[in-house]
Amino acid sequence: MGTNSAKIREAIEQIRPADVQAMERAESRQLNLTKPPGSLGRLEEVSIRLAGIFGTEKPVIGGKAVIVAAGDHGVVAQGVTGYPQEVTAQMVLNFLAGGAAISVLCRHLGMRQVIVDAGVMSDLPSHPDLRSLKFGRGTADISQGTAMTRQQAEQCIEAGINLAVEVIESGIDLIATGDMGIGNTTASSAITSAVTGIPPEETTGEGTGRTPEELQHKTRIVRQALEVNSPDPSDGLDLLTKVGGFEIGVLAGVVLGTAMQRRVVVVDGFISSAAALVANALCPRARDYMVASHVSAERGHRVALTGLGLSPVLDLGMRLGEGTGAVLAMPIIESAAACLSEMATFAEAGVSDRDPDPTSNGEATS
Amino acid sequence: MGTNSAKIREAIEQIRPADVQAMERAESRQLNLTKPPGSLGRLEEVSIRLAGIFGTEKPVIGGKAVIVAAGDHGVVAQGVTGYPQEVTAQMVLNFLAGGAAISVLCRHLGMRQVIVDAGVMSDLPSHPDLRSLKFGRGTADISQGTAMTRQQAEQCIEAGINLAVEVIESGIDLIATGDMGIGNTTASSAITSAVTGIPPEETTGEGTGRTPEELQHKTRIVRQALEVNSPDPSDGLDLLTKVGGFEIGVLAGVVLGTAMQRRVVVVDGFISSAAALVANALCPRARDYMVASHVSAERGHRVALTGLGLSPVLDLGMRLGEGTGAVLAMPIIESAAACLSEMATFAEAGVSDRDPDPTSNGEATS
Repeated sequence: MGTNSAKIREAIEQIRPADVQAMERAESRQLNLTKPPGSLGRLEEVSIRLAGIFGTEKPVIGGKAVIVAAGDHGVVAQGVTGYPQEVTAQMVLNFLAGGAAISVLCRHLGMRQVIVDAGVMSDLPSHPDLRSLKFGRGTADISQGTAMTRQQAEQCIEAGINLAVEVIESGIDLIATGDMGIGNTTASSAITSAVTGIPPEETTGEGTGRTPEELQHKTRIVRQALEVNSPDPSDGLDLLTKVGGFEIGVLAGVVLGTAMQRRVVVVDGFISSAAALVANALCPRARDYMVASHVSAERGHRVALTGLGLSPVLDLGMRLGEGTGAVLAMPIIESAAACLSEMATFAEAGVSDRDPDPTSNGEATS
Repeated sequence: MGTNSAKIREAIEQIRPADVQAMERAESRQLNLTKPPGSLGRLEEVSIRLAGIFGTEKPVIGGKAVIVAAGDHGVVAQGVTGYPQEVTAQMVLNFLAGGAAISVLCRHLGMRQVIVDAGVMSDLPSHPDLRSLKFGRGTADISQGTAMTRQQAEQCIEAGINLAVEVIESGIDLIATGDMGIGNTTASSAITSAVTGIPPEETTGEGTGRTPEELQHKTRIVRQALEVNSPDPSDGLDLLTKVGGFEIGVLAGVVLGTAMQRRVVVVDGFISSAAALVANALCPRARDYMVASHVSAERGHRVALTGLGLSPVLDLGMRLGEGTGAVLAMPIIESAAACLSEMATFAEAGVSDRDPDPTSNGEATS
């Protein structure tokens, strides 16, 4: 992968692997906390990942935010979606007005909502909570050629890196990714198939469509996008340029920027996972900083998660995007850190530990 | 089921079924909110249950609390657990000192922790956050005879009803159940087998034990407890008297009291589900007020949930008890209510809805 962008090269160089020694210390601390070993299940696994990210066996999580990037997709001309393209812009206004699911969740779960116009087709009014970046007015139709220029792809990723750094500098330790873009499940299926080699039939789902005929047609369009463009799965910029989207590029940059700053990126559903696959192609070490929040009901998401080697915290049958799955997982991720950092050990609490078992190595059997 | 307790009879009479009309209004409201129909998955199901409980399609959730009941179990004399009995009392002190998992979670998730000594063996110091009810000093050994007298069983349930009413009157709308008691997975397996007819081999898990031999022995003890006592599965008081526990009785009362007050009881893991089975045997309408928070890794919990006809929100491989799974599900339950009540409709937000599909009835295909 070659890029002319010094910003992207620098970010990739600065991403260090997770701190293995802190993870080992966290693992042995978990065994001394006042509970049977392993009884906090996934919370223990997540806490150990957090220890690796923050470089301490007592991680403390400060502020939480979701970055929701919006963009339009030229491929909607092929009739791959159930909703008209104007819904992308209308939903951005709904985010700003506080009426969308992600806005309601952010209010109730105590997190900041950062909205980005990465490339919405129509003009949007200026608003203090909206970052207007607009790298284009929707991508070009990926079934006919590339989505964007390589320069646009670099600009999206640079902007995402900058945004993550800025948000982290304001005191945020957990960043959720979120997306809005009519047509973006089509691009995400193309990215997922290109990276994993799994055919479009298994990475293409209903999205917002409804009938089996719509799904068959959409699957053919994904296949066509791959045939026309032949994206190079080892080159994240090529993936993004050929079959990506402006919001997907910004989110890929957010992943890199968050990893560079040693903070946690909480990956939402299918589109956010496609962005994470792009980031992973640019820098596989970025994976250490990801937590998969949920598995979406959208076909293809499990394939993308397998491609990332991540297993999801939640399985709530959701398929909305916007970062909704990611923000719902955040209290659990925060709780994982809090249990590891704040629970008393057997010695501290004066609680009797289990009798040593001569037939065991000290781990629970279940 | 006959009981001499006017309090219990009155509670059962006052439990009304969920409000079906409010649930129908919630269901149609969900279809008009700015998202594809069904795309919030389990959150939509939970929100409709909440509408039925609160009797409105715009449910609002106020305070949240967990009631953690502790009690000892005479059956530990049979060597069914990995930890010594004194751990029950030690962990109560750990709850009060804020060092246990449930205490850490309550602090971070913003909920009240109410600790009850329902029948711990040893004396506990008085503490402003501890309710000392002590219906006994541990139950009798259920492998040899009944756990407690029918009068004790009634007292436990009455106390749980009173506690739920008191907590709700202080402004709490969501009550999580939690337990602490060395030996209480043995009692819970006996209750689950008695109610469901599923044999002890499938309802008995490792608990805090470790080896296959320990598990086989524990399974035999559960079978023996059922043979010695022959509890009547249709009589909740008989179940509790013969193979229950003091903390299980208090939690069964909490379920009834919460249902009577038309609030939500968030059922934790295996022991809390056994308590819910007791409440359900006393009053099947109580089920309408339950949300199953998680499925525990403890064998037998899935069987208990099936017996309750509930499907869990979370599956995090946890098996700690204390209410830890229940409090982790609370932000999601609260979020479900908030999305239903506060999201904008398509009309309110000026967002274009999907084109009507002549081949569909208006529901999504996935």
